[in-house]
Amino acid sequence: MAMLTREQALVKKIKEWSGSTYIGDDCAVLSGGLLVSTDTLVEGTHFRLDFTDWRRLGWKSCAVNLSDIAAMAGRPRYLTVALTLPADTGEENIRQFYSGFVACAKMFNAEIVGGDLTVGREVAINVTVIGDSHEAGLMLRSGAKPGDVVLVTGHFGASAAGLQLLLSGTLSNYAINNYSQLLAAHLEPQPRLSQSWALVRLTAGAGALMDASDGLADALYQIAEQSHVDIDVDMAAIPLSSATSAYASELKKDPLAWALYGGEDYELVATIPAHLWLEGQSAADGLQFPFKKIGDVIARSAKVNAQGEDAPQIRLLENGAVSERSSGVVDLNNCFKHFC
Amino acid sequence: MAMLTREQALVKKIKEWSGSTYIGDDCAVLSGGLLVSTDTLVEGTHFRLDFTDWRRLGWKSCAVNLSDIAAMAGRPRYLTVALTLPADTGEENIRQFYSGFVACAKMFNAEIVGGDLTVGREVAINVTVIGDSHEAGLMLRSGAKPGDVVLVTGHFGASAAGLQLLLSGTLSNYAINNYSQLLAAHLEPQPRLSQSWALVRLTAGAGALMDASDGLADALYQIAEQSHVDIDVDMAAIPLSSATSAYASELKKDPLAWALYGGEDYELVATIPAHLWLEGQSAADGLQFPFKKIGDVIARSAKVNAQGEDAPQIRLLENGAVSERSSGVVDLNNCFKHFC
Repeated sequence: MAMLTREQALVKKIKEWSGSTYIGDDCAVLSGGLLVSTDTLVEGTHFRLDFTDWRRLGWKSCAVNLSDIAAMAGRPRYLTVALTLPADTGEENIRQFYSGFVACAKMFNAEIVGGDLTVGREVAINVTVIGDSHEAGLMLRSGAKPGDVVLVTGHFGASAAGLQLLLSGTLSNYAINNYSQLLAAHLEPQPRLSQSWALVRLTAGAGALMDASDGLADALYQIAEQSHVDIDVDMAAIPLSSATSAYASELKKDPLAWALYGGEDYELVATIPAHLWLEGQSAADGLQFPFKKIGDVIARSAKVNAQGEDAPQIRLLENGAVSERSSGVVDLNNCFKHFC
Repeated sequence: MAMLTREQALVKKIKEWSGSTYIGDDCAVLSGGLLVSTDTLVEGTHFRLDFTDWRRLGWKSCAVNLSDIAAMAGRPRYLTVALTLPADTGEENIRQFYSGFVACAKMFNAEIVGGDLTVGREVAINVTVIGDSHEAGLMLRSGAKPGDVVLVTGHFGASAAGLQLLLSGTLSNYAINNYSQLLAAHLEPQPRLSQSWALVRLTAGAGALMDASDGLADALYQIAEQSHVDIDVDMAAIPLSSATSAYASELKKDPLAWALYGGEDYELVATIPAHLWLEGQSAADGLQFPFKKIGDVIARSAKVNAQGEDAPQIRLLENGAVSERSSGVVDLNNCFKHFC
């Protein structure tokens, strides 16, 4: 049975304490369709300075925030950057950070409009992004309906594999040559903005959408919970890159565990009505529609969990039957978010 | 000669690296007159948990951001709150934080719309505020003109005095009874929003405005620099509260040093055309116009500083002559921002 992590339980309470009706999606939707989201990356929790250089840290700080806008199929416009740095941080490091950040922002037509600079013991980067809703519509987590198909962009698990590689110590030439894609997935993620726009142009807002920043399992759980549905996932359909599979095989690990629980892939997870999925595939032979089907949305079962709560079920299927791996349903306590 | 602090010099470079044309005022002004600002408070740099309780920390985190909107005479609307907390932070502390934050937000008609929760070694609070420009106009730092008068709200130095009191160790009953106003000034500052609206209704945007979050001297310097003017300040006119004067006298300190360089008073500093100042005073016998005059804006002198730069001069006058205290001009290196 899927369980909430301590962080998720606390976020629910904070939503209550803050009296906010906006919290729950990747972005808050303000009047006029304005989108806003905020994220903090903390040294030791979200990144290590011996794993990344400052330019890539800047890129990633921007990319993960743009991904929150992609998760609503919106268009990013403005970014604020609040940096907390130890007093002895070199100026060249800060310059490199901004060069990576600005490169990412420019690529996706967003710009820095404000910031803050403070001294602290550890490096922390807070970014707030402001965007516009897409003119075709808005995609929320709560829009999934029984009969929808579950779609994803790209592939999963590469970021977790890249992290494993970094944690393994000094990288051999073999690893650098063969697994550079895994390092790039972890250190320089790509926000799936154009993919999200292709989706919302097709659906005009029907269906559900979020990004898989905390893992595929978490994204499916959040959509199912907020849409009051269950989800069946075909484990064989979850896309893995060949580098992810090869590295998992080398370590004798299950790459699907990385895909489901690793997090930080920043791919999109969507559900859309089945007839639109047919339409999306047929348009231009599907070449223009960069999504793959991995499962189906089904009606919420009457079952309750051990705590008596009406929680969503995300069933993991192999060959049409409940998988014997991973206990058959997602368990968010398996998530190994980041490296701590 | 006024000098830049290292932080200010670095912020200038960041403005260049980020390629942003927005940075320079308390808020960025976006399309449609939207205002946005971000601020981070870091444990050990901006606050100590043995000096404040969590409720007042929440209040202050909100108030200092609303003050950035007041500094543009805008109306705050939305707030995001990104909290970084050690893993062992008690839930009741977080609840108290939000109770203080929400109390301040509600008082000024703003609401929390988003947030983030992450684990870190030290407590850090990042808040981004989004607001609307006032319908009467927008007040920038760059609007001061020779002939303007320099106005301020409230009084200065109380926050620095309150910090001195906290740093002095255990508080006696005498101190708690006589100096509670100083502690409140430091721990629960009030954003001067309604005052800023009274100002912009009078000026329709003519003149300059900012808040004195980094001290009165810094505010005057920033306005003078961005408006390309000099400023003369009558030191006898700088408002001090009786508690600030009494505590300074007890410690044999100069309360004007607290006022000029202490920071965190969150009062407004404005310059407006002289004829509007007459108009503001005469309306309702001045009772409705909550500003006091402390100086005059004069044309930028041809002088350059030791580095050959055309820097603004903020002259400190006593009885019409350059003061012998404080070397007669503001020196931002005197600033004792926060307690570190």
